[in-house]
Amino acid sequence: MARPKEFEPLEALDKAMQAFWLKGYHDTSIRDLVERTGVNYYGLYGEFDSKHGLYLAALDRYRDTVTREVVRELKKPGPALPAIQRAFNRLLALLKTPDGRVGCLICNAAVELAPSDEEVATKVRAHMKLLRNAFRAKLSEEPPGKGAAGDSDIGATAEFLTTTAYGLGLLLRFGCSDDYIRRHVRTALSVLR
Amino acid sequence: MARPKEFEPLEALDKAMQAFWLKGYHDTSIRDLVERTGVNYYGLYGEFDSKHGLYLAALDRYRDTVTREVVRELKKPGPALPAIQRAFNRLLALLKTPDGRVGCLICNAAVELAPSDEEVATKVRAHMKLLRNAFRAKLSEEPPGKGAAGDSDIGATAEFLTTTAYGLGLLLRFGCSDDYIRRHVRTALSVLR
Repeated sequence: MARPKEFEPLEALDKAMQAFWLKGYHDTSIRDLVERTGVNYYGLYGEFDSKHGLYLAALDRYRDTVTREVVRELKKPGPALPAIQRAFNRLLALLKTPDGRVGCLICNAAVELAPSDEEVATKVRAHMKLLRNAFRAKLSEEPPGKGAAGDSDIGATAEFLTTTAYGLGLLLRFGCSDDYIRRHVRTALSVLR
Repeated sequence: MARPKEFEPLEALDKAMQAFWLKGYHDTSIRDLVERTGVNYYGLYGEFDSKHGLYLAALDRYRDTVTREVVRELKKPGPALPAIQRAFNRLLALLKTPDGRVGCLICNAAVELAPSDEEVATKVRAHMKLLRNAFRAKLSEEPPGKGAAGDSDIGATAEFLTTTAYGLGLLLRFGCSDDYIRRHVRTALSVLR
């Protein structure tokens, strides 16, 4: 009979993701990861291969949890503007972690690692495309000339909304309040009117 | 007769700033700084006290060079919208470094260090205020109801433009092209019409 695993990989991954989310990649030590997850070095590396492997898995986990919820809001039927507003509200709510407001893991990864780490850069670009496509699909549902994007180019608007979504994470790292961020979203969404 | 300094502090600082700008704080080693500046450990630490002291000085240097140029564009007389467009064009041009497009040093600092380093957070917030005030002053020059910000709240618009400016740095870390970024700025500035 196989020996049962001594830890739940997804549970450990969630905790490792929290550590990276708060402190970034370079400043998170193996010791931090062991303390956070409660799993020893051999357990973590047996499952995730390396600190880098664990980080890449954390980026995927972020996409499959946080980002998935935002995309789900955009896929709900109904007019674009309220759906997009709900998606931003949902994102802001999801960026509240047990460590407080620590921004967006993908935004942090892009800034810290994407220029020097091709594997991270690839994941970051794929994430950007995922969000952009979700915004674009929602905007495309509107009848032409009456769409939330008005007569402007839907592609450019989808790109703008994607950057605005990452901007929320950036503002949180700047220490901005939720009110500040909600005001920012309100102003940004005025491009849709 | 006092022995002359063996290096130009401002020249060394510019080179150290480039290193931090490219690689961030944690991933920049003392060795990187020594190689970049051509100044040895004792010279650098004699002048700047520590890696952290050198980093703080680099943030100030960034404000006094890059940001100053952007603020200067906003202070030129004339209507707000073209001045703001020129300021964004200038910023995008200034973000081209000898290492390529490595984003915005303040945006990078906010993401990597502000949540855990009060001295960096203070500088980052002061930088944000400096930019916001420059946008606000420009927007306030317009007669009410005819302003570039239309009837919307000038304060919120100035905040939005400030976040948009940092967004340029973020998009560069994401690996976006200049065309992508120019499109983003064009869409963002449509809030002013």
